[in-house]
This record gives sequence, C-alpha cells and structure tokens, in this order.
Amino acid sequence: MTITSIIIFGASGDLTRRKLIPALFHQYQRKKLPEQIRIVGVSRTKYSHDDFRDELKEHAKEFVKKLDEDNWAEFAKNIYYCPSDAAKIEEYDELQANLEEIEGGEANRLYYLSVAPFLYAPIIQNLGEAGMNKENGGWRRIIIEKPFGTDLESAKELNKVVHNTFQEDQVYRIDHYLGKETAQNILFFRFANTIFEPVWSRNYIDNVQITVAETVDVGTRADYYDKAGVLRDMFQNHILQLLMLVAMEPPASFNATALRNEKVKVLQSIRPVANGEAIFAQYADYRKAKGVAEKSVTPTYAAVKLQIDNWRWKGVPFYLRSGKALKNKVTKIVVEFKSPPHMLFKNAVGKPGGRNILSLCIQPDEGIHLQFEAKVPGEQAFRTAELQFHYSDAFSEPTGDAYERLILDAIEGDAALFTRSDEIEAAWALFDPIIARSEHNHGTAPFTYQRGSMGPLQADEFIAEDGRVWRKSGCVHE
Amino acid sequence: MTITSIIIFGASGDLTRRKLIPALFHQYQRKKLPEQIRIVGVSRTKYSHDDFRDELKEHAKEFVKKLDEDNWAEFAKNIYYCPSDAAKIEEYDELQANLEEIEGGEANRLYYLSVAPFLYAPIIQNLGEAGMNKENGGWRRIIIEKPFGTDLESAKELNKVVHNTFQEDQVYRIDHYLGKETAQNILFFRFANTIFEPVWSRNYIDNVQITVAETVDVGTRADYYDKAGVLRDMFQNHILQLLMLVAMEPPASFNATALRNEKVKVLQSIRPVANGEAIFAQYADYRKAKGVAEKSVTPTYAAVKLQIDNWRWKGVPFYLRSGKALKNKVTKIVVEFKSPPHMLFKNAVGKPGGRNILSLCIQPDEGIHLQFEAKVPGEQAFRTAELQFHYSDAFSEPTGDAYERLILDAIEGDAALFTRSDEIEAAWALFDPIIARSEHNHGTAPFTYQRGSMGPLQADEFIAEDGRVWRKSGCVHE
Repeated sequence: MTITSIIIFGASGDLTRRKLIPALFHQYQRKKLPEQIRIVGVSRTKYSHDDFRDELKEHAKEFVKKLDEDNWAEFAKNIYYCPSDAAKIEEYDELQANLEEIEGGEANRLYYLSVAPFLYAPIIQNLGEAGMNKENGGWRRIIIEKPFGTDLESAKELNKVVHNTFQEDQVYRIDHYLGKETAQNILFFRFANTIFEPVWSRNYIDNVQITVAETVDVGTRADYYDKAGVLRDMFQNHILQLLMLVAMEPPASFNATALRNEKVKVLQSIRPVANGEAIFAQYADYRKAKGVAEKSVTPTYAAVKLQIDNWRWKGVPFYLRSGKALKNKVTKIVVEFKSPPHMLFKNAVGKPGGRNILSLCIQPDEGIHLQFEAKVPGEQAFRTAELQFHYSDAFSEPTGDAYERLILDAIEGDAALFTRSDEIEAAWALFDPIIARSEHNHGTAPFTYQRGSMGPLQADEFIAEDGRVWRKSGCVHE
Repeated sequence: MTITSIIIFGASGDLTRRKLIPALFHQYQRKKLPEQIRIVGVSRTKYSHDDFRDELKEHAKEFVKKLDEDNWAEFAKNIYYCPSDAAKIEEYDELQANLEEIEGGEANRLYYLSVAPFLYAPIIQNLGEAGMNKENGGWRRIIIEKPFGTDLESAKELNKVVHNTFQEDQVYRIDHYLGKETAQNILFFRFANTIFEPVWSRNYIDNVQITVAETVDVGTRADYYDKAGVLRDMFQNHILQLLMLVAMEPPASFNATALRNEKVKVLQSIRPVANGEAIFAQYADYRKAKGVAEKSVTPTYAAVKLQIDNWRWKGVPFYLRSGKALKNKVTKIVVEFKSPPHMLFKNAVGKPGGRNILSLCIQPDEGIHLQFEAKVPGEQAFRTAELQFHYSDAFSEPTGDAYERLILDAIEGDAALFTRSDEIEAAWALFDPIIARSEHNHGTAPFTYQRGSMGPLQADEFIAEDGRVWRKSGCVHE
C-alpha cells in the first residue's frame, strides 16, 4: 500500500497547532485518513520527533474536544519532524533524504505551505529545483495558504512561479470559507432541491446582502492588517466566494473543473465597481493601535455594491459588507425577494410588507431562516413569520472545522473547494481598483464608526440611496 | 344605531351550546360584535328568557375557557328566547311580534338555521311567507348549516327553495373548514408571498395529498352516518374546499364573488372520476354499530384520485383520503414536488430522495413543514431536513374556533368563506357518481380495515399503482 505523506512547512506555527493537527487527528479518529500516513513537520526550530509530538499534544489538549490519550498516542506515532530552513535550497538534499527515510518507500506527498506568504515562492522554487515536484511512484500536491498575492500583479507573479513547478491540478489554494459546511450547503440548498432554483433569479429576487461581521479588532495583527485592510482580508476572498456560491449557474457536475468554471463565469460577469458603489470606514481608535500608521486610511469596514451582468442577475444588486470591532460576530447571506405582483391582503402591522427574506446563516448560527407572510389569527391580515432550520437540531454529525474537509479533499485529489488560478486572478482584477480607491480614498480619511456598533451610519445611507435597507436575517446572534 | 339580531333556529340543540354561543361570547369579549345586538333563540322548548340564559351559562362553563362571570352577565343581557315551532307557518305572527318587541325598532336580522336538514326548506318557506325576508329598515341574511342536500338533485331543490325567498347574496352556507385559520392561511401562504406561487404548478409539483383522518368511530351518529357515509360527510364538502384553496388561480381580489368564481373554476376543471380512481372501506366492526344496516356498504373510509384538467394542474393527481376509527386525528395537505431535473449530489441514506415536500398542517397541529435536502456534515451527500413553522410559536393570538370567524363575517356581510349555490352543486355533481359507485360498490362489500390502523391496505396499493406513496407530512400527531 502506498504511503501518503503530509509535509507541513511552517510546522512550528500557530495554524499547525490550532487547526491542521487537530483536523488531521479528528479525521484519523474517524478513520478517514489513508492507513499509511506520515505527518511531517518542517521548520527551522531544532525539535526531535518526540519534542514535536509533545508540543503538539500540549496544544491538542486545548484544541481537540475530549482528547482521548490512547487514541492520540496511536495517532502521534505517525508524526515526524525534520528541522530545515525551507528557504535555503542547500538544505533540500537532507530534507529529501529525511523524508525518504520516514516514508521507507514510494509515497504520495502533500506539501502544505503554512508559512509567511513571502516564503511561498522560494519554497515552491526550491521544491522544483530539488526535483521534489516529480511524481515518481506517487502523486505530488501542494496546498497554499491565504493570502494568495496582495493584488492582481503579485497573484499573477505567484501563479507563474507555481506553474513553473506544478501543474494547476496539483495545486490547492486555500480559502477556508469553502470548507465550511454551511457554505457548501448553499450549493445543496440550491441544487439538491426543486423549489428554490425556480425563484433564484432577477424575476423574483430584489437584492442579495452578504455580511461578514467581526467583533474582534485588529489586535496583535495590526502590522499586517494595516497593509491589507478589510478588502483584501475579507472581500476579495471569503465574501466573493460566498457570492459565487449564491450566484453561480448549476454546474454540469460537482467536480472541480465544472464547479470552478461556473464560479469564474460569475466573476467575469461582475461589472467594474463605479465611484459611489463602495464606502470605507475605520473604527474610532484604529489609528492608535500599535503597528498602524499614524495617518492610515486602511479601511477596517467596507460596504460594496456589485452588479452581475448576466441573464440571471442583471439588475439585482449584491450588497457586501464586512468590518472589525462590530457589535456581533456573524456571517450571513440575506436574499430579499420582490413583493408579490398583486397583494390581496393587508399587512397587520401597517407597513407595506410582503417581502420574503431567505437567510442562509453561515456562522456562528448554522441554519436557514425563511421569512414569509402568514395570516394573523382573527384578522384578515398578514404578519411576518419564520420557517426555521438549525443544523444542530437536524444533524447529529458535528459541523467540523473547515480544515478537516479541505485537507481530506486534497489527499483525495478533489480540488472543488479550492481556488483556481484564473479565479483568484479574476477576484483581484475586480478588487484592485476598489482597493486603490480605498487607499487614496479621494484624498479624504475614511468614515469613522464606534466600536461595538453596527458599522458607520454611512453604510445605512449607502443602501438607502437605492431605496433599500440592510435586512434583519433572523440568524441567531445577528 | 341599527340593532342587529341573530335569530338561531334550533336554539336548544347541541351546536348552539357548544359552538354558536361560545363563538358569540368570545367575539363579544373582543368587542367585535355590533354594539346593539340581540341574540334570540328559537325552538319548541318552553323556556323563559332566563331559563335559556341559565342553560347556556351552564354549558358555557364547559365550552368557554376561563369564563368571566361579570363579562358573561353583561353578554347574557343580549340573549332572548322565543318558543316557537318554526315548521308551522301559523306560529310566525307571534314569532315576528316577539322579535319586534325584542328589537324595539328597525333591525338587521341574521337567521341561523341550526336545525335538522329536513327543516331547512320549510323554515325558509315560512320566513318568506311571513315576509320576514323583506329588508325593511335593515338587512336580512340567512346562515344555513351543513349538510346542504344529500346529492345534486336535493341540493338543487333546496337552492330553488332558498332563491324563492332570498337573493344569493343574502345566503351564507356553512362549511366550517373554511373558517379554520389554517385553511384560510393556505391563501395567505400562496398569495401573500412571492416565492411559493412560481413553483405552484405542474412544472414543479408531482402530486398533492389531502388527508382528513379521524380517530372517532360513528358513535351515536350511526343512524345518520349509515345514510351519509364518508363521501358525503367529508369529501363533497370539507376536502373539496381544501382542494379548491390549494388549486385555485389567484383571484382578482379577496371579495366573495372573485374568490368563489375562482373556486368554482377549479371544480369545473375536475375530470369525472373513472372506475378504479376511488376505493371504499369500512372499519372492521362498523356493521355491528346500533343504527347501521346489517349488510351496509356505506364507506367509513375512502381514497379518491382527482385530476384537474387546466393549464396549471394537468397531469398532477390530487389524492384525497378520509376515514373514521383511524390511528390519528389529523387534517393535512401534502404537496410533493418533483425531483430536481439533474441531481448533482447523492442521498446519504441511499434512496433516490431529493423530493421537496411541503406540508400544510390544518389540525390539530397548526403549522407548516417544508422538507428539503441539506448537506450532511462531513459528507458530500444530502439528507432530508425540515424548515418548520408553528402557529402557536409565532402568534400570541389564539387560532379561534371556525364559528367565531364565520358568524362575524355573516354579520359583516362578507360571504367569502361561505359556499355559493353553483359551488355546492358542482361539488355534488362531481361526487354523485362516486357515491353511487360506493353504494353499489360493484356488487361487492367495501374493503375492511382495522380500528386504529392507518386505513385499508388497499389504499396503499391504490396510490402505489401510480408509483407513489402516501407521504409523511411532518405534521405533529400525523
């Protein structure tokens, strides 16, 4: 039986401890990993295999629910460590020799780049130069963490480096939002059911609102964040991914090529964002955070209106918003339908009413809320009621962490939930001009909002200009 | 201010005590009745006003939740009694004189026929002969209880008698199913919402199943029941009403004429029921009940398949079933949608799956259940989940008894929830041949089913012949 190695570059980092090892351990417990597995940490720190195992175990106690000691001990036998500076080509002979010894024969290899982004290119180049990309007796694949580039040019540059060493079908670019059960469920909701797809278009939908709200501020990541800002941190990747899942045409099948072709088609149909279709803001004391430039105009909040110029969506705005230091932590998609063409009944609460609102709650509430109009008992009038579904009520299976799904998919060679090169470039092409505008911001500072608020007042005015409001979703903790 | 009188013929009967007086009292408490109201009981029993009030109060203690004594005392001042044999024209001078004295001036009058059906025609004729149908200084309306006729011929005959004395717009034929909040909510669900109507047709719906199951047997009503049977008792009236609400086109408005025009259109579009499209059964010891003929073939259970030949419904069968002495008491409408045209995902439980099922739960569960397919956490497969709505969670207003709504509507002159003459005749025209078949039953006895079962096995075979099954609705207590 062929051995499968998962070689984690940046093994001493936070992601390895918090996410990757717990995800691998969970899948090991569920017997989803290949039987012959090697998990090999690589970084500059001089651990022994056992040092590394011990350190991971300490963290596992924190990040694995109810850690079973025996189970962990079995699992940990498959963990190894190779000290190496992956940026230096001269260390690759030894790394390769160590890996071959650990593997003890022919092996598949999944390289996982969990390192600082500036190291992606050198490591990929080194893997190529050392011949470690060659599929001798086993496949070679590479997972690349986000962010993938900081703009269109750098993303193209990085894709060039990647493609010098790996074929696109060997490359798995992470956007962990795609690994979330509730994000994937958008496709099931749309395409495993008969009744929603017929109304999923400009004929019945008035607008779509996607919100990713965080309560945390920039914290210790201020240095990174002030260079990135909310548009790179949330919009170009996660929010666009959610938008693509909501807006895409039914794919021919659920394989990676068919699915990603349809996603890219959505991006290609989005109209360039005009002036006035995006607003930017900072929470009140953002500039005082250590690591933030004194006169920084980096937005910690943005609201953007996108228009998809195709047969399905023409004329249906997609309003996107995201920010830090807001009142609630919530990710949700709100689909607001048009009013019925002819309303026979009156609204019991006086307002016009009669607008169906479908909320796909991504996190922390994992569920679906459908607002509809029902008859008020004793009156010939309607009031809004809700059809509700909560994942936790319906399924005993836990909705595991996104990394559990994604690592397994990469091992199984399914790239459907990873970002393709043309997709990532199209996303940057769309957001580059918006980011440029935020950075110059018409020569003025961004708007300000209070910590713990729902965002800047200007975001309400922004959508009110179109005669609309940010809709309540019904998602718990919204 | 004009006085409004409600004159109940058959005032000493069960319906008056159990339903009419409690309904009037509830609406009185809610201040929905006209300020100047007279409630006048008429029957042969020799009560005084106070005897009648006392008797009603005794029953009110049973049928009104938390009877407020003071409130009742206020209400009871409006109750009167006139002993009279309404079948005898010679007693009408005195009746009219008594009513005029009670009214003390010009008055609107709502006559309520809560008597044995054979008395409908004579009382209506007498009202006409006594001139009590004349709208002198106030309107005259008449509520006629069910059953309205026992077949097409008798219903036509009765309509003729009615129309000799009253204009159709003065006539309010009761089908108390239309007074149920959850039945009316079918129209709100369909026409106050944008998202359901587009899939409400042969393009997306595979079949519709309407079930009215009772746990009670014929009890003390065996004598009546053996002449009527389940087809007259449930199908020709209640079940057809539910079918019309589900199947009708959107009316131009919610007024009585527009609404009933659309309902009649549905009836007119139903294809005559062929041999083999209806089955009949009796529960095991039905013939032993006192009052039932020794060799009775009267069905206590039936299943009927109807086809609506119009643009919306052609090819979508409506399966109707109802019976006594069944396992559960439940009224529900199950709309089974077609499978998605192309299924991208697999069913986690192996079956084909992927059929959305919408359940409109009429009673005792008052709610809506929408079965849809959701992603199973950790698998690329779906399993059926439910969006749920329960009236009692969403509305603090109680869903009152059907009679509360219906009496009020008649007082307010709104006939939308009452059956029109052409509607009732079309319903009989449809069911007369089915009833005839059940009575002759091809010369054989009806099928048998066990008390407390889900009905005869033949009902499962009946729907299985079309490659379908009776669907679980999700309604509580189904």
